[in-house]
Amino acid sequence: MFEGALQDLIDQLGMLPGVGPKSAQRMALHLQAADPDDVTALVDAIRAVRERVHVCEVCGNLTEDPLCSICRDVRRDPTMICVVEDAKDIQSIEGARVFRGRYHVLGGAIDPIHGVGPDQLRIRQLLTRLRDGQVTEVILATNPNVEGEATASYLARTLNTIGISTSRLAMGLPMGGDLEYADSITLGRAMEGRRSMS
Amino acid sequence: MFEGALQDLIDQLGMLPGVGPKSAQRMALHLQAADPDDVTALVDAIRAVRERVHVCEVCGNLTEDPLCSICRDVRRDPTMICVVEDAKDIQSIEGARVFRGRYHVLGGAIDPIHGVGPDQLRIRQLLTRLRDGQVTEVILATNPNVEGEATASYLARTLNTIGISTSRLAMGLPMGGDLEYADSITLGRAMEGRRSMS
Repeated sequence: MFEGALQDLIDQLGMLPGVGPKSAQRMALHLQAADPDDVTALVDAIRAVRERVHVCEVCGNLTEDPLCSICRDVRRDPTMICVVEDAKDIQSIEGARVFRGRYHVLGGAIDPIHGVGPDQLRIRQLLTRLRDGQVTEVILATNPNVEGEATASYLARTLNTIGISTSRLAMGLPMGGDLEYADSITLGRAMEGRRSMS
Repeated sequence: MFEGALQDLIDQLGMLPGVGPKSAQRMALHLQAADPDDVTALVDAIRAVRERVHVCEVCGNLTEDPLCSICRDVRRDPTMICVVEDAKDIQSIEGARVFRGRYHVLGGAIDPIHGVGPDQLRIRQLLTRLRDGQVTEVILATNPNVEGEATASYLARTLNTIGISTSRLAMGLPMGGDLEYADSITLGRAMEGRRSMS
C-alpha cells in the first residue's frame, strides 16, 4: 500500500471498469510523474465530456448536439431502426458498415436480478418514435446473452402487438459473448442473416 | 469513432500505460455517465497526487512529506540499503516482509538504447548516502532482465571500488520478467538466497 493521496488515486482508478489493482497502480504512478500538460489535458478532457456530451434526444446515442450525427444525417434510411443496449454498440455496427438506418439505444438490457425491468430502459421513447408509422422494421441487436435475448423477446412481443416487424441479428454471434467485441465480418454476417421474430 | 469531446477523452485515456483502445472507450463511457461525485473524486484525487506527492529527499520513494515513511522509521536497519528501479518495487518487497533495511530508488535502469546511462539514474544520491560509512551492505534488487542486470553489475563494480559490499537477489526470480509481478514467496526466496558480488 502506498501513502495517502497516491493510494487514494489508485483506489479511485480501480473503480473504473476493467481496471484491476495493478493497472490502477501503474496509471497512478504514471500520472504522478507525467508531464503537467498531459495531466491537464486528461483532466480537461474529463471535464469537457461531463459538460458537453449527453444523450441524443431521439435515439439515446451520445452527442454534443441536441441530435446525434446519425439522427441528423438525412441520407440514413428512416424506415429501419436498429435497437442496441449501449451507445458503444452503435460504434461496432457502424464500423462494420452493414446498416444504413437509424438506431435506438436502450441503455441496458432487461435483468430482473439487478432490478432492471422494461421501465428502466428507453422503451417508451422507442414506442413514441414508432408512432408515425414511418418505421417498417426494427432490428433487435441486443447482446447475444441471457439478458439481451430476454430483452429482444420482450421487444418482439411488444412491437409485433402494435404491428411492427422485428428481426434479430442472425446467430453467428458467439453465445454468451458481448456485441462490443464482435469483429466486423461476424457482425456483417449476423446483419445479413437476421431472422424474423413476427 | 465517437464525436468530439468523447473521442478526445478516449485518446487521452489511451495514452495511460496498459490502457488499450477498448479499455479507454469503456472508461470514457463510464466517466460520461458516472455519478458526478465519483467523477469529482477522481479528478480531485489526480490533483491531490500532483500537488502533494513527490520524491523522498533521501531514497527517492514517493511520499507527501519531506522524508518517506520508511526513511522516517527509526526501527529500520540503517546498515542495509536495497536498491530498486522504481518506487512500486518497494511495495513488492515490503509486501513480502523479507527486508527491514532502507531503500534507494534509481528511477529506472541503465538502458543505452533509450539513452539512459548512470547519470540519468539516482546513483550520485546513493553514493552520497554511503559516504558516512554506516551502510555495510547494498542489496541490488534491480529487475532480472538485461537492463536490470547491467545496472546491478555497474553498481557492484562502482560500490566494491569504494569498499561497500554488494549482493544481488538470488536467481529464483524468472529471467526476462518484471520485479513488480513477482509473488511474495518468490521474492522471499530471492531475498534469502542473495549472492555476494564483491
